Amino acid sequence: MSNVFGEKVKITLFGESHGNGIGAVIDGLPSGFAIDFDALARDMARRAPGSSPLSTTRREADEVEVLSGVFEGKTTGAPLAILIRNTNTRSGDYQPHLPRPSHADYVADVKYGGCQDYRGGGHFSARVTAPLVWAGSLARQILAQKGVSLAAHIARIGAVEDTRFTQPDAALLQALPNKPFPVLDDSVAEKMTAEVLAAKAEADSVGGIVECAAVGLPVGLGEPFFDSMESKLSHLLFSIPAVKGVEFGDGFALSAMRGSDANDPLRMQDGRVVTATNRNGGINGGITNGMPLIVRAAFKPTPSIGKEQQTVDLRTGENATLQIHGRHDPCIVPRAVPIVEASVALCLLDAML
Amino acid sequence: MSNVFGEKVKITLFGESHGNGIGAVIDGLPSGFAIDFDALARDMARRAPGSSPLSTTRREADEVEVLSGVFEGKTTGAPLAILIRNTNTRSGDYQPHLPRPSHADYVADVKYGGCQDYRGGGHFSARVTAPLVWAGSLARQILAQKGVSLAAHIARIGAVEDTRFTQPDAALLQALPNKPFPVLDDSVAEKMTAEVLAAKAEADSVGGIVECAAVGLPVGLGEPFFDSMESKLSHLLFSIPAVKGVEFGDGFALSAMRGSDANDPLRMQDGRVVTATNRNGGINGGITNGMPLIVRAAFKPTPSIGKEQQTVDLRTGENATLQIHGRHDPCIVPRAVPIVEASVALCLLDAML
Amino acid sequence: MSNVFGEKVKITLFGESHGNGIGAVIDGLPSGFAIDFDALARDMARRAPGSSPLSTTRREADEVEVLSGVFEGKTTGAPLAILIRNTNTRSGDYQPHLPRPSHADYVADVKYGGCQDYRGGGHFSARVTAPLVWAGSLARQILAQKGVSLAAHIARIGAVEDTRFTQPDAALLQALPNKPFPVLDDSVAEKMTAEVLAAKAEADSVGGIVECAAVGLPVGLGEPFFDSMESKLSHLLFSIPAVKGVEFGDGFALSAMRGSDANDPLRMQDGRVVTATNRNGGINGGITNGMPLIVRAAFKPTPSIGKEQQTVDLRTGENATLQIHGRHDPCIVPRAVPIVEASVALCLLDAML
Amino acid sequence: MSNVFGEKVKITLFGESHGNGIGAVIDGLPSGFAIDFDALARDMARRAPGSSPLSTTRREADEVEVLSGVFEGKTTGAPLAILIRNTNTRSGDYQPHLPRPSHADYVADVKYGGCQDYRGGGHFSARVTAPLVWAGSLARQILAQKGVSLAAHIARIGAVEDTRFTQPDAALLQALPNKPFPVLDDSVAEKMTAEVLAAKAEADSVGGIVECAAVGLPVGLGEPFFDSMESKLSHLLFSIPAVKGVEFGDGFALSAMRGSDANDPLRMQDGRVVTATNRNGGINGGITNGMPLIVRAAFKPTPSIGKEQQTVDLRTGENATLQIHGRHDPCIVPRAVPIVEASVALCLLDAML
Repeated sequence: MSNVFGEKVKITLFGESHGNGIGAVIDGLPSGFAIDFDALARDMARRAPGSSPLSTTRREADEVEVLSGVFEGKTTGAPLAILIRNTNTRSGDYQPHLPRPSHADYVADVKYGGCQDYRGGGHFSARVTAPLVWAGSLARQILAQKGVSLAAHIARIGAVEDTRFTQPDAALLQALPNKPFPVLDDSVAEKMTAEVLAAKAEADSVGGIVECAAVGLPVGLGEPFFDSMESKLSHLLFSIPAVKGVEFGDGFALSAMRGSDANDPLRMQDGRVVTATNRNGGINGGITNGMPLIVRAAFKPTPSIGKEQQTVDLRTGENATLQIHGRHDPCIVPRAVPIVEASVALCLLDAML
Repeated sequence: MSNVFGEKVKITLFGESHGNGIGAVIDGLPSGFAIDFDALARDMARRAPGSSPLSTTRREADEVEVLSGVFEGKTTGAPLAILIRNTNTRSGDYQPHLPRPSHADYVADVKYGGCQDYRGGGHFSARVTAPLVWAGSLARQILAQKGVSLAAHIARIGAVEDTRFTQPDAALLQALPNKPFPVLDDSVAEKMTAEVLAAKAEADSVGGIVECAAVGLPVGLGEPFFDSMESKLSHLLFSIPAVKGVEFGDGFALSAMRGSDANDPLRMQDGRVVTATNRNGGINGGITNGMPLIVRAAFKPTPSIGKEQQTVDLRTGENATLQIHGRHDPCIVPRAVPIVEASVALCLLDAML
Repeated sequence: MSNVFGEKVKITLFGESHGNGIGAVIDGLPSGFAIDFDALARDMARRAPGSSPLSTTRREADEVEVLSGVFEGKTTGAPLAILIRNTNTRSGDYQPHLPRPSHADYVADVKYGGCQDYRGGGHFSARVTAPLVWAGSLARQILAQKGVSLAAHIARIGAVEDTRFTQPDAALLQALPNKPFPVLDDSVAEKMTAEVLAAKAEADSVGGIVECAAVGLPVGLGEPFFDSMESKLSHLLFSIPAVKGVEFGDGFALSAMRGSDANDPLRMQDGRVVTATNRNGGINGGITNGMPLIVRAAFKPTPSIGKEQQTVDLRTGENATLQIHGRHDPCIVPRAVPIVEASVALCLLDAML
Repeated sequence: MSNVFGEKVKITLFGESHGNGIGAVIDGLPSGFAIDFDALARDMARRAPGSSPLSTTRREADEVEVLSGVFEGKTTGAPLAILIRNTNTRSGDYQPHLPRPSHADYVADVKYGGCQDYRGGGHFSARVTAPLVWAGSLARQILAQKGVSLAAHIARIGAVEDTRFTQPDAALLQALPNKPFPVLDDSVAEKMTAEVLAAKAEADSVGGIVECAAVGLPVGLGEPFFDSMESKLSHLLFSIPAVKGVEFGDGFALSAMRGSDANDPLRMQDGRVVTATNRNGGINGGITNGMPLIVRAAFKPTPSIGKEQQTVDLRTGENATLQIHGRHDPCIVPRAVPIVEASVALCLLDAML
């Protein structure tokens, strides 16, 4: 009831962190699209751990095998299935009877009657986002062919904030994914890095915000009543582990404003209807209005931290303490950037086909 | 592709502000449930306009006729259809060629080729939430029978904030809907009222936040990967007109925190696993953990304001100004409280059946 | 989980035979379609009872009120809801404790715990097909604009068979619905009528077959693997009360054939690929091939007959006899013709949009 | 839009005949079910080609790798993904420009713009049913634990008919899958074999019918209006390649009957409501009535035959002849038995969970 998303482009996810593999099946793609496999690999590398001192030292090969749906380098129109083998797994790191606070361990134990694959978080592992990134990266390629550009940046880590998107254009959005540390104001990169390293030094973790923009969208994407563009996007974004908030345009800030300030005046520009400001993030009444779509996702700090924590022992039913010794990300946010992009790309492609 | 929501309990919405009527079809309800029609009427009255100086002076009778699915006062198990006639409509108030800024007027005109029923916002009118409230109110009755209580309060209007839910219990949540001005800290009611009246005096509007809590939930609601409890709730909440942000637990504030602060320690209490804090809003890994579920929805200010605004003339393709003379809410937030409750109730019932 | 059908064009049905009304909500229709309400009324009349000695003498006004989705005679693109009031109902005719053999009475009683609206079969009544016919008739209008013609005829009643469609063309299919007794070989009309009247004279009923054809379809409708055109059509056809068999092209007869006889040779004709025969009913691999689509639905005899029958008494748990005194159709088949057409039209429109 | 089926148990299929592999993702299975892998292998062997002179000499290893969803031999509750590598593929056998009559070649070429993987029929290959059989075999195991037994037999091959199910019981249905040639009347096995070998000798193929029964079902499975048990079952059965007809109980024969003969009298037996006959195949009003569910699926002869056939040359747009030299089944029906069982099992499990 849960591992399938999308209407016209349907993605089915599977896999557990320490099982044989993880993957996805993507259905509904147009046939005959020539896939840029190098671009896919670049996006996969952006999500992969082990490439930076900010992330876990656990390296994942994340080699993607296409099982179906591609013939002579092009999509066939049939379901496209991919498989990523799990290789670097240290199963000894986990103690299933001591659930990690604010992780899915306890709820999974209850929901699945203790039969869940608890190793590495099992199906709840953020590792399951790897095939999502591949699928979303492909969606982004197809969107690019339709004139849509999209990219995300790190908008916050801990106390450090980047500037927000104001008038993003295609050039900016195409350049952003190539940055080793994707922020708009490069001067914050060092401070954000320091924030992560400080948390890491204390065996702690830190949260942040990812902001994504898309330009080149037609007017009219999204469906009233229940499938507003915001509904679809938030549905997918909230399935990303650790996301606890989603907002569009000025989002929560709009709740403190007057209508006369919050409304985006409509204006003619080069024979086209535009808005003078974009406080609504490119969406009115749940429907895209042709202005840049702006969405922000708040990530809580990774719950897996090295500091000693209070938990319960599910075997004895008594209070206990927990010290996690595995290799964990002090901050998931940099790796979350391509995950957010992938989610937005999949939703937009689904709406545009 | 858009007017149906839910898996086990499916709701189908229809209607336009100034058409013959609006309504809903609710399928998947258990048979044999004895409906409390008085309680339904009370919730409908909470959403109805015209009952307070804070809302529009436009009165809507909102008389609900049950067309099917109820026999001898009980649900039959067959689809339950309701119809609310549109009675108090002044069609002369609208100028379809001058789209209201930040309303759906312009996008609807493009999406439907000018054939949309533009009167009163048509299908985009917040009036379409009336049958949603009825359905959600019924869902809340069924949930109550299962031991679940839920209610919402006004968490913010403009600059004025209410306190947040800390440890809501069933007694508080059952009392809250009976308050004429549903806030936790009664001392803010007057300030919030002043905020709305100030906006009204200037022919302006003001936004706000609604916070909803549910207690008595079992551990295990929500489905990985795509149908996390947060995904389903946000999907429905973002279909409510004017919602631009949704967060769970401490939400966006978590993005500035350390893991050691954000994690909710697990503890044994009376033989039951609880969390010492509830920064995650009762949801871990997308699954309910048995603690109070806490969700907040940010509402932008009503876009329909009396102040003169900049727009475009869709007939001439030139810039224009717009002065709206209709009767509009200076603040939708008080009326949004039962709408948020209804949305949460429908999602939770869908997950629990 | 059950009252919604379709992907791009979604239809939601509601209503019980003796409740306040029955109806449908149709979502996903293109905006701006000018509806021919007279044509809709003609199709509704073809399904309505009371117009012929072959059907029940129970008259149903079947007046259709459009509640939403139409503005100035055209579709708005918003959900189109219709309501048909139940007027001519004689509730005294039913004995809920004596379930009618081969009707839904007994299964409904178990499934809904005795809370179902048993009057007139409730939600299981064939009356619920009235809004389906309206929706399908509208779908047929939209298909006609796209060059698709479709119509059905009575292929069998009891022992009497009509000829089958061989090479149906648009002219034939457009003329067929205007026939008072829609058969291809007019000489069988009298025999079929006699078959029905003979059953009626003995307080009995008789079954039959409806065959439907559609021409003008593009190559490529239907989706592998699970949404073959046959899968979608049969799904909807088997939801029509009394349908117990569905076949495409030569259907069951193909099971007795050799491949060399069953295969339809491919040929070029006027620069277009055609098949020399059409034993596959216009569908290969679940996908339309551009030849006439041919489908047959087998209707069992109406289970409500006047003859004394064996049943059980649900109050006492003992065997009992049942004599039904209501007004029932001796043969549902003539009225089923527009129902089959409607089902096929809805499926094809869903696939073509 | 098409490779996912089911509501509570969702199956996603992928793969092409000559790609890297085929497989399925099954979501919604209960956690903690101890899988009998030997039983799965036996069902896979029943579908596999190469095991009998009646089928193609093409051998497929069909080794199934479980990628996820199983931990320590039990289902985890997370999506269960399986992969079957394609090993024995002779790609040289295919001529994409000469579509095989009554196969999907031509429609696939149009639908996918010539980009489909044409080798071996690609995604349209009956090979894609291998993971379906695995999933359905697992569903059958879970159903068995719930007291439901189901099995199919060959009801017809060409002109030779087996007897039909009359009063199937659990013992019969549990024994049937162990028969090397699954018929009810063993005396027809030899004649059916002769029918297949005669077709094979002439480089031809022959069709047939598979009949499936399920016993031990509760009253109440299936949902009005659109998800009748017949609708769901036919939807899945018509997605099996070569199925052109589906009927329940006496099916098409009911169309020639009187109601007094077709109705199944209700009787009390051992304190339980039963029907004296079972002409409705265990389904009334689309809902199971507790009697054996009986369904028949008609298979056309395999379209791939060795005899010379008429086709068109898609390169030149001219008529052409085609001689297929590959290894093909003269009769798919024996191998279709476990495919039909799998389809019925998946539908029933979906309805029972």
